[in-house]
Amino acid sequence: MLTFASDFGSPYPAAVKGVLCSTVDESARIVDVAHDLPRQSVRAGAFWLRETLPYFPPAVHLVVIDPGVGTDRAAVALRVGDHALVGPDNGVLRPVARRLAAAQATDDGTDTAPEIEAFEIHYENPASATFHGRDVFGPAAGEVHAAGVDAMETLDDLTPMPVGDLVDLDLPAADVDESEGRATGEVLVVDDFGNAITNLPGTVLDGVDSVLVNDERVPAVESFAGVDRGERLVTVGSHGNVECDVNHGRGDEAFGVDVGDRVVVEW
Amino acid sequence: MLTFASDFGSPYPAAVKGVLCSTVDESARIVDVAHDLPRQSVRAGAFWLRETLPYFPPAVHLVVIDPGVGTDRAAVALRVGDHALVGPDNGVLRPVARRLAAAQATDDGTDTAPEIEAFEIHYENPASATFHGRDVFGPAAGEVHAAGVDAMETLDDLTPMPVGDLVDLDLPAADVDESEGRATGEVLVVDDFGNAITNLPGTVLDGVDSVLVNDERVPAVESFAGVDRGERLVTVGSHGNVECDVNHGRGDEAFGVDVGDRVVVEW
Amino acid sequence: MLTFASDFGSPYPAAVKGVLCSTVDESARIVDVAHDLPRQSVRAGAFWLRETLPYFPPAVHLVVIDPGVGTDRAAVALRVGDHALVGPDNGVLRPVARRLAAAQATDDGTDTAPEIEAFEIHYENPASATFHGRDVFGPAAGEVHAAGVDAMETLDDLTPMPVGDLVDLDLPAADVDESEGRATGEVLVVDDFGNAITNLPGTVLDGVDSVLVNDERVPAVESFAGVDRGERLVTVGSHGNVECDVNHGRGDEAFGVDVGDRVVVEW
Repeated sequence: MLTFASDFGSPYPAAVKGVLCSTVDESARIVDVAHDLPRQSVRAGAFWLRETLPYFPPAVHLVVIDPGVGTDRAAVALRVGDHALVGPDNGVLRPVARRLAAAQATDDGTDTAPEIEAFEIHYENPASATFHGRDVFGPAAGEVHAAGVDAMETLDDLTPMPVGDLVDLDLPAADVDESEGRATGEVLVVDDFGNAITNLPGTVLDGVDSVLVNDERVPAVESFAGVDRGERLVTVGSHGNVECDVNHGRGDEAFGVDVGDRVVVEW
Repeated sequence: MLTFASDFGSPYPAAVKGVLCSTVDESARIVDVAHDLPRQSVRAGAFWLRETLPYFPPAVHLVVIDPGVGTDRAAVALRVGDHALVGPDNGVLRPVARRLAAAQATDDGTDTAPEIEAFEIHYENPASATFHGRDVFGPAAGEVHAAGVDAMETLDDLTPMPVGDLVDLDLPAADVDESEGRATGEVLVVDDFGNAITNLPGTVLDGVDSVLVNDERVPAVESFAGVDRGERLVTVGSHGNVECDVNHGRGDEAFGVDVGDRVVVEW
Repeated sequence: MLTFASDFGSPYPAAVKGVLCSTVDESARIVDVAHDLPRQSVRAGAFWLRETLPYFPPAVHLVVIDPGVGTDRAAVALRVGDHALVGPDNGVLRPVARRLAAAQATDDGTDTAPEIEAFEIHYENPASATFHGRDVFGPAAGEVHAAGVDAMETLDDLTPMPVGDLVDLDLPAADVDESEGRATGEVLVVDDFGNAITNLPGTVLDGVDSVLVNDERVPAVESFAGVDRGERLVTVGSHGNVECDVNHGRGDEAFGVDVGDRVVVEW
């Protein structure tokens, strides 16, 4: 199967889907992940893909968040065990690649993560200088799917490259000081609901029923229903991180934080 | 086949689709119904699902509009003839279940509606307290699809329960007084176009070319094209109910009504 | 396979998809093109479909942009070689039909475009006067798919009609004066990014590094990355036309142009 994620909005993804449908067999499943990922944000895309793609069975994952389209950034395909990732070499694929590797180690019980293997995608004079999703990445993802993830080295347009040569991206880690009872992190993304998702590990909320968030006391609850409508809360989101939320409201506004803003939790 | 409706916005549905794809065969169709159903509105969801799901062939329908996630509300699966509905026990599944039953009675010409059968879904310690779509309902829908709707009682995670124990929800009925030529109802939902969809049966517009709507005279027409651009109208919407609309405009604003507001039509 | 494009927003497309799923085999692919095409804009729809559908392999394409629903406009199906188009007779299908014909001529190397063949779709008393997508076009598209594009004349509900009787629509052409170094056109559509897409052929930017756009000098670059963030640019978009854009911003606002506005480029 094949998944497709982008920041293209609408209707640009349709042309890419046309290209994919032209290459892969009609019996193969093609799934839209999302096409409204935060525009041109490599970091936000990296976060959402890391939290989303590992739920899929083995697949070719096409990812086009590509603020550098038209520059000389490379086009790459990664193989992570049974999964392949196809997209620009700007780091957006790295966090999900690591997560996919870790997930497969857990799944097969060996605790041995598959190695991430990298390939450069060769392309010449794409029809458009600004729509590589349609003209470069879509065709490449279709080819990888048609050949099979285990046969990527047989494709003429792919050349193995050292993983170390890829642009890397690590989502920033929080600084947790258990002895002081304080964790310092930042907002990674704000979701559609207005939930401000931090990089603070959910474990900092273990066993407490309230914390200080940037010096203000806020209930720490299991779910939104733990506070009244309109009230602020912190909780462990579905990704395992601390979220700053409001029941039936926008956490980003109520906490006055946006992407990249510092969040200090004390317990 | 399997359908999926939610109020999740984006990109949360993708993780659920990953779970579904991990359980059901690649040859099975998975269709997104909508993921921007009015947020946390059980009633609006119930309306749209009732008007939408009966057009599908027999399917497992996953529905996640779940303002009570994290409380002790139950997770349930309903069987209605060839269809199954999987979601929270908050009433959102009930109107569509009744409609599906009625539709199947009509389809097979017996005028005997299949009984609605209910099952409680058992789950323990889902990975997230706030994302049961991914961790509870998605897996359950996948299991029901894999086993087949007629084999729901064979699933370990499902226990039959009396339908009478389900949380019920009935969309409010209008009060039609034929002798007075007056019907009193309310706005059930406002759609993306701004059309204010009431619970007044379309039959109240039979044979009239205008009506009083909350004391103001408005043309009653077959379609938007029956009035000039920017003009108000009432018409029978695709769901069979009276809508308060504007040709190329927003009916909710022009009529000054919102969800739950009273609408009186006199003819 | 079958594609579906509309200006329905959400959740109306789901009922149509239910109808399609009820007619076509589960093994057939059904792809959403877009459902947020500019509302009731036949011209914008015609543009986007022309730029999108030709990337698909042979398919039945359901298109519902239908401001005249409920009037006596006809419902039609077109055959263009291996492709079929189903929708209202308001011109929205014509530009893409011509493009599909031209593309197939190129593909098979004959330079002979297949003829466009037209059929009128007969329907009586659809369940709704305002939702022909669900009650007329969806069922017709499903029937065409089930019968096969090469068997459209065997369908009882379709009657061949002269192509010349169809409502026609041509997207306006630009006026290019090579000797004066000036091209005069207009904005066809503004996309989600705010890019103002004109009807000026991209060739007018060949070999120049800046142009006058409505009397103001603007860099002509290969891609957004060719100017600093927040700066204006003109470039050749993925459709081959000149776009008035801003790197990380909205071109329509920065150039002060909207759909239909005149754009003069001088080089």
